[in-house]
Amino acid sequence: MMIEEAISFITQFYEETNQSSTKRNERLKAIKQEIIEKGYYRHTKEELTFGARLAWRNSNRCIGRLFWESLKVQDARDIQNEAEFLNAITSHVENATNGGRIIPYITIFAPSFEAPPKIYNNQLIRYAGYEKIGDPSEKSVTHLAEHLGWRGDHTNFDVLPLIYQFPNHPIRYYEYPKSLILEVPIRHSEFPKIEQLNLKWYAVPIISNMDLKIGGITYPTAPFNGWYMVNEIAVRNYLDSFRYNLMEPLAQAMNFSNLKNSSFNKDRVLVEINDAVYQSFKNTGVSMVDHLTAAKQFEKFEATEHAHHRKVTGKWSWLAPPLSPTLTANYHHGYDNTMHETNFYYKKNESSGCPFH
Amino acid sequence: MMIEEAISFITQFYEETNQSSTKRNERLKAIKQEIIEKGYYRHTKEELTFGARLAWRNSNRCIGRLFWESLKVQDARDIQNEAEFLNAITSHVENATNGGRIIPYITIFAPSFEAPPKIYNNQLIRYAGYEKIGDPSEKSVTHLAEHLGWRGDHTNFDVLPLIYQFPNHPIRYYEYPKSLILEVPIRHSEFPKIEQLNLKWYAVPIISNMDLKIGGITYPTAPFNGWYMVNEIAVRNYLDSFRYNLMEPLAQAMNFSNLKNSSFNKDRVLVEINDAVYQSFKNTGVSMVDHLTAAKQFEKFEATEHAHHRKVTGKWSWLAPPLSPTLTANYHHGYDNTMHETNFYYKKNESSGCPFH
Repeated sequence: MMIEEAISFITQFYEETNQSSTKRNERLKAIKQEIIEKGYYRHTKEELTFGARLAWRNSNRCIGRLFWESLKVQDARDIQNEAEFLNAITSHVENATNGGRIIPYITIFAPSFEAPPKIYNNQLIRYAGYEKIGDPSEKSVTHLAEHLGWRGDHTNFDVLPLIYQFPNHPIRYYEYPKSLILEVPIRHSEFPKIEQLNLKWYAVPIISNMDLKIGGITYPTAPFNGWYMVNEIAVRNYLDSFRYNLMEPLAQAMNFSNLKNSSFNKDRVLVEINDAVYQSFKNTGVSMVDHLTAAKQFEKFEATEHAHHRKVTGKWSWLAPPLSPTLTANYHHGYDNTMHETNFYYKKNESSGCPFH
Repeated sequence: MMIEEAISFITQFYEETNQSSTKRNERLKAIKQEIIEKGYYRHTKEELTFGARLAWRNSNRCIGRLFWESLKVQDARDIQNEAEFLNAITSHVENATNGGRIIPYITIFAPSFEAPPKIYNNQLIRYAGYEKIGDPSEKSVTHLAEHLGWRGDHTNFDVLPLIYQFPNHPIRYYEYPKSLILEVPIRHSEFPKIEQLNLKWYAVPIISNMDLKIGGITYPTAPFNGWYMVNEIAVRNYLDSFRYNLMEPLAQAMNFSNLKNSSFNKDRVLVEINDAVYQSFKNTGVSMVDHLTAAKQFEKFEATEHAHHRKVTGKWSWLAPPLSPTLTANYHHGYDNTMHETNFYYKKNESSGCPFH
């Protein structure tokens, strides 16, 4: 199994990078020997970089894959202690944030066979969820943080600490320096009362609850990020009834007098909060893409892949954005949801998005 | 095959209508005998009515299934000549329209083994599609009508004639009396320029390109209707780029100065044309449901079905409406898309909706 996946990945790597078959055969021979002797093999830096980018390219749910080749890969496989670990994490946050001009970034810690540090957060940056305030989807991580002794300010937007564990060590938490976390206050030029709701969101979504698998090797700790598509914050995080559920306060701030279904005011609130989030990110100088542009970029990704004679796989329910989906080309054709092996995998129940689609 | 499907359907019919197992066994025996002798069997009026309603209840793509038991079933199986046929069709249109208070209605002509009349239209009422005007999805039906000698006025909204054929007769067309077809001119109380676009739509969507299958028997000619969900007209018919493609004229009529993706004006146009269509139907006294109410009704349907210990099957991509889908419960859970046999089936390529989802 591992050997087959290794052969498949290495072959693809040598093919796509136009390297000689002699070199490829030597490498394959060495890998086979390594697997026979130790039960696993170790990727070169080049293989790791290519593999992480390929995993992004293969992510069926991701609409942002046009930029897969630009992924910056930080090789953190050799990190042995907490100081280095925390340094790698904070470097990731700082380098990926890049003052607002977000860089797609992944930090890859040791593979599973080398006992990597474990991260308990769904994303490196995320807001705490308390009984009646904050992000309900983070309640269990918040409980864990509190169990470890962390205390938040009980606002709607308390940045959770990093929660991590080294093998044979207790779970610990680490509070980020405030200056490390770039956040965007939400305003709308046409609806000044929006600002009074004191909404904000963090700049960089750094997913930390997925396994990265490359050529049969699993990297359980490999936080990665792109930049936000506006709907993720405005449609899902703010308006899903099981998340911040802000329909009513937003409608009030926008002076909509009623929320009857047939008034279409709920639909208007949805559009305007998307505009607000987008304006706010842009005005703060933080990278963000709107849903229609993201879908156009995905079309370009598809064209590029076809030009390389590669088939694009995808998951329709994720590629059709949740705002005005029919205005995108994605909505109007089907996708083959075959999952290529080099990919990102949810560890357990997904905490974001709908696991059923 | 037919015998198994017949047994399954008849058993379900007797169970759900609480009839005695003695009567059921007699009926099953008679049906088996009939199939052995003739290769098919004939439904009673009660079976036909129950079967048509069940086919609606089983329609995985339909969000309007709460009302399945209210379907009015017109038994037209014994119709033998064109005059009767045209009378049944015009009766359907008139009775279903019901002056605007639309009645869910189905007219069932002879089953396949009795050589039924054939209908070539996708819906009984539909607008012609010409080279540069009208509904592009009706181009092939329009070609057929013109080939038969029909000539439209070449407006954006020419009602196509009914195109039909009796066995061993040539294809013919029939123009509906103008007074039979209820149409709704589209206006928006906030955007008076919308009215100047002279948009309209017909009141009743009567699907005529699907087979009805009940207990192993196929009814190839069984036009049926509910009432419109607003998005079908406003989102899909008016704004799909391969349909009326009205984004630009609508934006102008709404005084949106630009249609940049990140201005969110395309999203605003989408919301406002939905409001316009909904207002116009309501002000004209024509039944219509908004997408959020339809989704609520579907939740009620699911609850009712569960109360009867029946599993609801469904197709997620159709049950999530194309406007503000995340504001509905449907979006947030999965559906089992198993297709129960008593159902409506597309004959060929679907002309409405996306066949891939």
